[in-house]
Amino acid sequence: MFQKILIANRGEIAMRVIRACRLLGIRTVAIHSEADAAALHVRFADEAVCVGPAEASKSYLNIPQIIAAAEVTGADAIHPGYGFLSENAKFAELCKKCRLTFIGPTAEAMRTWGDKVSAREVAKRFGIPMLSGTGVLKSAADAAEQADRVGYPVILKASGGGGGRGMRIVREASEVQRSFEIATQEALSGFKNPDVYLERYVEAPRHIEFQVLADQHGGVWTLGERECSLQRRHQKVMEESPSPAMDNEKRSRMGDILRAAILETGYTGLGTLEFLMDERGELFFMEMNTRVQVEHPVTEMVTGVDLVAQQILAAAGERLSLPDTRPWSFRGHAIECRINAEDARSFVPWPGLITEYHSPGGVGIRVDSGVYGGFRVPSSYDSLVAKVIAHGANRAEAIARLRCALDEFIIGGIRTNIPLHQALLRDPEVVAGNISTHTIERVVSQGF
Amino acid sequence: MFQKILIANRGEIAMRVIRACRLLGIRTVAIHSEADAAALHVRFADEAVCVGPAEASKSYLNIPQIIAAAEVTGADAIHPGYGFLSENAKFAELCKKCRLTFIGPTAEAMRTWGDKVSAREVAKRFGIPMLSGTGVLKSAADAAEQADRVGYPVILKASGGGGGRGMRIVREASEVQRSFEIATQEALSGFKNPDVYLERYVEAPRHIEFQVLADQHGGVWTLGERECSLQRRHQKVMEESPSPAMDNEKRSRMGDILRAAILETGYTGLGTLEFLMDERGELFFMEMNTRVQVEHPVTEMVTGVDLVAQQILAAAGERLSLPDTRPWSFRGHAIECRINAEDARSFVPWPGLITEYHSPGGVGIRVDSGVYGGFRVPSSYDSLVAKVIAHGANRAEAIARLRCALDEFIIGGIRTNIPLHQALLRDPEVVAGNISTHTIERVVSQGF
Repeated sequence: MFQKILIANRGEIAMRVIRACRLLGIRTVAIHSEADAAALHVRFADEAVCVGPAEASKSYLNIPQIIAAAEVTGADAIHPGYGFLSENAKFAELCKKCRLTFIGPTAEAMRTWGDKVSAREVAKRFGIPMLSGTGVLKSAADAAEQADRVGYPVILKASGGGGGRGMRIVREASEVQRSFEIATQEALSGFKNPDVYLERYVEAPRHIEFQVLADQHGGVWTLGERECSLQRRHQKVMEESPSPAMDNEKRSRMGDILRAAILETGYTGLGTLEFLMDERGELFFMEMNTRVQVEHPVTEMVTGVDLVAQQILAAAGERLSLPDTRPWSFRGHAIECRINAEDARSFVPWPGLITEYHSPGGVGIRVDSGVYGGFRVPSSYDSLVAKVIAHGANRAEAIARLRCALDEFIIGGIRTNIPLHQALLRDPEVVAGNISTHTIERVVSQGF
Repeated sequence: MFQKILIANRGEIAMRVIRACRLLGIRTVAIHSEADAAALHVRFADEAVCVGPAEASKSYLNIPQIIAAAEVTGADAIHPGYGFLSENAKFAELCKKCRLTFIGPTAEAMRTWGDKVSAREVAKRFGIPMLSGTGVLKSAADAAEQADRVGYPVILKASGGGGGRGMRIVREASEVQRSFEIATQEALSGFKNPDVYLERYVEAPRHIEFQVLADQHGGVWTLGERECSLQRRHQKVMEESPSPAMDNEKRSRMGDILRAAILETGYTGLGTLEFLMDERGELFFMEMNTRVQVEHPVTEMVTGVDLVAQQILAAAGERLSLPDTRPWSFRGHAIECRINAEDARSFVPWPGLITEYHSPGGVGIRVDSGVYGGFRVPSSYDSLVAKVIAHGANRAEAIARLRCALDEFIIGGIRTNIPLHQALLRDPEVVAGNISTHTIERVVSQGF
C-alpha cells in the first residue's frame, strides 16, 4: 500500500482525499498556490508544499513543480482529484516514469475513454446506446451533409471538450457554416484540438450518469446512476441518486453493458459514463469522465461505499472486496447541492473574505467544505466552496432535510447560490422529479 | 398532526427537534433564557419566547412561563428534549390539562418506568434480568442486613435518582451506617425523596442500553442497543451502536422480553432501558429513561430510523410504519463523541466565548451542534456543546473516521474534551472494544 500520497488539487476535493487517506492510514502531502496558503487542505494535510503563484497554470497545473514536490516529500502516489490534471494522460505517463502511481486509470485507458470520438467508437463496439451522430467532421460542407442525415436540431461538439464547453446547437441548415467555424475555433483555443463532431440534439434532456469502479484483478462494479439534470450553463448544480427517471430493470440492463465494456477495455479505478435521457426515457451515451466526480457523495450515501478510499485501494493494486450485487441495492435517496461563491441569479462569481461561516448538521446531512470563517475565497479558481448532501429514506425526506440544511447554512461576506438551491427545492416540478437540463433556466427566469 | 410544537429545551437537542419538525412540516417555537438570546435554536426556530433569566429554575424549568409561551404562540404540543422537564410526570399532566400534547409517554407510564423502585417491580414481573437487590431500605440496620444477603460490594442508590447522582459504593459492613446516612441525605436534597435501595455492585461493568419505540396502536419496536461504558463520573462521554459485547442472539432474546413489557405497560414513544453487563456478559436492568437520549444518533445511523420524527408521530397518535425486523438489522457501526466545554483532564467546566468554530465534515460524519463561532457558552447549563457521530461499514472504519473528524474540529476560545476523545480513540483497549465504566479513569490517569 501507499505510504504517502500527494494531492494535486485544492478545496473540498483535496479535503475529501485527505479524509480517505486518514481512513486508510496513509500520510498526505498538500500542494497549494500562494493564494491558498491559508486553505483548509493545507491545514489538515500532514505536509504542504507551495508550488507557485495563484494562476492555475503556474501552480495546480505546474507539472514539474508538482512532480518535484512529490519527490522531495517522498510521496509514492499522486491523487489528481477532479479538474486540473485529473484527465491529463501525459501527466499520468510522466508520473509513471517518475515511479509515482497516478491514482486513476492507465494513460492508455484515459485516452481510450477520455477522447469523445474514441469513446464513442468503444461505446459502439460494446453496444452502449448513442444518439445518431458522426465522426470528426472534415469541413462545413461535411457538417451540413451529416446534419441533414441525422435530422435537425443537431449539436456540434469538440472532440477534446468537456464540462459543456465547446458546444453549439444548430437548428437549421443555414446556420451550419457559421456554427462549424465558431465551434472549430473554440475547440482549438479551448482544447488545443480543432476536431468537432455532431449528433442529434434532444430539446429537454435529462443528464444521467453511471458510476463504475474497477480493480486490477478483473473486479468491476457498477454503483448505479446519478441524475444531474439541474445544470446552469452546462455546469451541474444539484445532483441526486437514484434518478427519479430510472428503475431497477433499466439500471440492471445498463449495468451489464457497462461492466463488459469496462472490463474488456482494461479500465481501472473510478469512472463515470454520462448519458442523456430523452423525453421517452431512452438513454444515449455522451462521454466518460475518467476521474472522481464532484457529485460522488450521493452515490456514497446510497451505496455505503467509500468511493475515494476504494479508488486509492484499486490504484495500489489491491483486490477490492465489495458485494457483487447487480444492480446495487440502494439505501434511500441522496441529493447534493453545490454551494458556489457566486450571485444566485446572475451566476457572476463572488469571491472574497468569508466573514461568518456555520455549517448545517443533524441527521442525514453531510457537508464537504473547502472553506472556513476567515478564509478569503480566491478569484483564481472555480467558485465551488462547499457541498451539502442530504440522505433520507426516500426522495421526499432527502428534500425536506436538504431544505432545512440550506436554511441553516450561514456564509457571510460573499454571495452564494444558496437562494437558487432553495428556489429549486420549492419548485413543484423539481419536487415531483420532473426535471431537465433546462429547469434551472426556467426557475431563474420565473424569479425567486 | 401537530401544527406547531414548542421546544422546552436548549442547545443541540433543541436544534435536533427543530430539524425533525421541519422534516414533518411542523412549525416550531423555541423558548430561551436571557443567557441564550443569541443561541442557535433561537435563530432557527420559527418563533422564540424568552421565559426567564439564566438560572434554569427560572427559565427552562419555569413551568408556568413555558405553558404560557405555548398558549400565547398557539403551540399544540411540547417537546421536552432530555433533562429539564423531560421526565417530570407532573409537567406532563399539566400539559394535558392545558390541552397541550406532551411529547413522551403518559404521566402514568412515566411514573411506572421512571421511578427506579417501581421500574424494578415491573422488570421483575416481565422477567427482565436484574442484579440481586432490595426494595426501599427502612433503616441503616435494614441496609446492613440486606447487604449481607446480597454480598459485598453493594451500591446504594436513590429511588428518585438518575444520571449517576446519589450513588454510593459500600465495600464492607463497617461502612454501611455512614453510607446509608449520606445517601439518604443526598437523595433528599437532590431528588426531594429520601428513599434509597441497594444492589450487588459489579466492579468493571459495561453500560449497555436498549432503545425502544412504541406507538399508541400496539406497535412496539426494539432498535437494538447502545454501548455507553465510556463514562466519567457517571456521565456518558462516548457511545456506540452496536455494542462490541453483544450478538444477535442476545439482542433478539432481550428484544422479545422488552417488547412484551413495553406493550403490556402501555408505554408509548421513545424509551431507553439501561443495563449493566458484568464480566461474564450477563445483563442486569438498572433503570429506564422515558425520553430521547443524548446518544440517540448512533442508533439512527445504524438503523436508518429518524427517532425524533418517529417520537413526534407517535405522540400525535399516528400509526408508525417501521419494518418489524427482530432483531433490527444494523448497517455498519456508529460512534458518538460528546464535545463538552470543559478541561479534558480535570473535567472542570470551561464556558465562555467561542472565538473560532469549524465543524468537521465528509463521508460518514454527522455533527449535532448547539453552538457557533461568536456564541458565548453560558455557565448556567450542562457543558455539552456539540456531538460528533461517525458511521462506518464496521467499528474500525467508524473509529478511523471519528479520529479524522476530531482532528478537524476547531473550537477556539474555550476548552473542550476533544483531547480526551482523541486519547480514548488511540487507546488499544478502547480500539479493541475492551471497555468498562472505569476505562476513562484509567486513560486519564495514564496521561495524554
